[in-house]
Amino acid sequence: MALALEWAAKGMYITAPNPRVGCVIVRDGEVIGAGHTQPAGQAHAEIQALRDAAARGNDVRGATAYVTLEPCSHYGRTPPCSKALVEAGLGRVVAAMGDPNPLVAGRGMAQLEAAGIATASGLLADAAYELNIGFFSRMRHGRPWVRLKTAASLDGMTALENGESQWITGPEARQDGHAWRARANVILTGIGTVKADDPQLTVRGVEGARQPRRVIVDSRFEIGMDARILQGDPCWIVAAVPDPEKAAQLRAAGHEVILLPNAHGKVDLPALMLELGRREINEVHVEAGSKLNASLVREGCVDELLVYLAPSLIGSGQGMFALPPLKRLADKVALRFHAVTQVGADLRILARLNKNHTED
Amino acid sequence: MALALEWAAKGMYITAPNPRVGCVIVRDGEVIGAGHTQPAGQAHAEIQALRDAAARGNDVRGATAYVTLEPCSHYGRTPPCSKALVEAGLGRVVAAMGDPNPLVAGRGMAQLEAAGIATASGLLADAAYELNIGFFSRMRHGRPWVRLKTAASLDGMTALENGESQWITGPEARQDGHAWRARANVILTGIGTVKADDPQLTVRGVEGARQPRRVIVDSRFEIGMDARILQGDPCWIVAAVPDPEKAAQLRAAGHEVILLPNAHGKVDLPALMLELGRREINEVHVEAGSKLNASLVREGCVDELLVYLAPSLIGSGQGMFALPPLKRLADKVALRFHAVTQVGADLRILARLNKNHTED
Repeated sequence: MALALEWAAKGMYITAPNPRVGCVIVRDGEVIGAGHTQPAGQAHAEIQALRDAAARGNDVRGATAYVTLEPCSHYGRTPPCSKALVEAGLGRVVAAMGDPNPLVAGRGMAQLEAAGIATASGLLADAAYELNIGFFSRMRHGRPWVRLKTAASLDGMTALENGESQWITGPEARQDGHAWRARANVILTGIGTVKADDPQLTVRGVEGARQPRRVIVDSRFEIGMDARILQGDPCWIVAAVPDPEKAAQLRAAGHEVILLPNAHGKVDLPALMLELGRREINEVHVEAGSKLNASLVREGCVDELLVYLAPSLIGSGQGMFALPPLKRLADKVALRFHAVTQVGADLRILARLNKNHTED
Repeated sequence: MALALEWAAKGMYITAPNPRVGCVIVRDGEVIGAGHTQPAGQAHAEIQALRDAAARGNDVRGATAYVTLEPCSHYGRTPPCSKALVEAGLGRVVAAMGDPNPLVAGRGMAQLEAAGIATASGLLADAAYELNIGFFSRMRHGRPWVRLKTAASLDGMTALENGESQWITGPEARQDGHAWRARANVILTGIGTVKADDPQLTVRGVEGARQPRRVIVDSRFEIGMDARILQGDPCWIVAAVPDPEKAAQLRAAGHEVILLPNAHGKVDLPALMLELGRREINEVHVEAGSKLNASLVREGCVDELLVYLAPSLIGSGQGMFALPPLKRLADKVALRFHAVTQVGADLRILARLNKNHTED
């Protein structure tokens, strides 16, 4: 299964909106076929592994397939994998975990069992879950997994008072940040960051990566047509106050405009997350300023923080989250630390939100 | 040597101002004697180990002694250990590292070699250094190792804007903080913290600990005689602006007053550290507010930060270090991360200052 997870990870940048799945077929302790899910509409991991075995002249009848997610049981863009496994005559199928897709959800394993194939589930489930955390979120809650990235000094400052922020963290952390951007399907930012830093928010230096969709929260259409983020691939501009002329300009330049106002004339962020879910976005990577960061957190739109802490003190400057002052400490936003890693000279901290929903 | 280090750690709270040293005597792979340094004026680790061997009826002639610090070679409060090892007929002495005390500094090992005893040095030196980091600082720089403790939310806030700060971190982190207090010889705070929180700054719940000296930086003698910190063991009050009446009151209550003004009418913090060095203080544990924290850092008086980060966001509140705004990011205070550990639900980060001196 560990090997199947390695195969699954090879599909990191290509399977969306489908999950990243790997499959390894084993007989007598020997791998006789392996594969991972291909881009949507093409073969899933199980089919790839069966084809690999066939290409190598290996007989899979009676062999065991290790697959990182329950085989699909429905006709979607491709025929059901459970059917293919039955027809190939596999003896046993071990899944890391069940498929959360309500169209599958246990039916894949049931079909295998009905055909007399031995099954088991739950092996290395945590690792399989992490790999498809966004797919699970979308299937269970209709919205993507939202990971908010920020970089600060050890004392929590993202920039000096004068705004200077390049570079607080080191080159290794910045490159690591690109890998996290790459695994997302959307990079989300706000008009404040576009005006202050004029970033491209593209993925650079990550082998095999494709460019995630850039989404800009810009309630009042303040973005300039010369913003660097608008010069490359099409973006989605999410606004709250209609401006037909600016919207037409943006559309003419190839971008899409989405109007999602809330009662306060701002973008309805929870509605945006549901909209991204409808658009089959599994993972969202947020790189924004302290205001949008705070709004996302307050409105329950963040699942995870990806925080790089640099080995430095700044003392006074700009904070990570412009949350309004709390009256009681009990009202703080509760997290739990998920993983801490040293990246170059910096620390990378993954912390997950406790409050809103989420993982299960 | 790993065992000798365990023995050394048993002297954590009792050896000051002497270093924490352990000694294990081994013959044919069997431990025949072990000990650690006793309170000042009593036996050092080597003598304890020799006595232990004798009490157990073991013959140490020709055996190997593992000692976590080079044996002393001078008559101080006790006779030289090198002499005792020679007289006992040890065959070989392995030291983790040399003694930085200028009265020893290689002479211990040289005396052993002159007596025909085989010697080696450098085994597990890093661990031996960490155990006596304060002793090394005092011997090399004349000042203690200064460890500044702070606790904050992940976004760097130590308290709400309204001042509420109890408790940001969890019970495990708070208890861990007591263990760090306990290993210090001085707990240093400022008048701001005394006025705001009225703490005792005693060690609670640490087995075998004794109470470190409490030192209060109080430039203008603002401390109230009813402050809780003044009700227990004697404190040292460090001031800058003379106030003979208040000083007399404090002395009458058993406390000591130290006047150390700088040119700005504040306490001269670097001079205070040298004064603490003269008083044979090895390790200082700082628990203060953001102003004294910032002054200590700016004036080069901090060697290490002990930061507890809680899994929470506060957003706006009080920061860790009230440093003045920087003009350039290059002027930030440079650190390096030394160790990161999860303590309960919190993170404990040890980060060391790069700038001033220090470790070697």
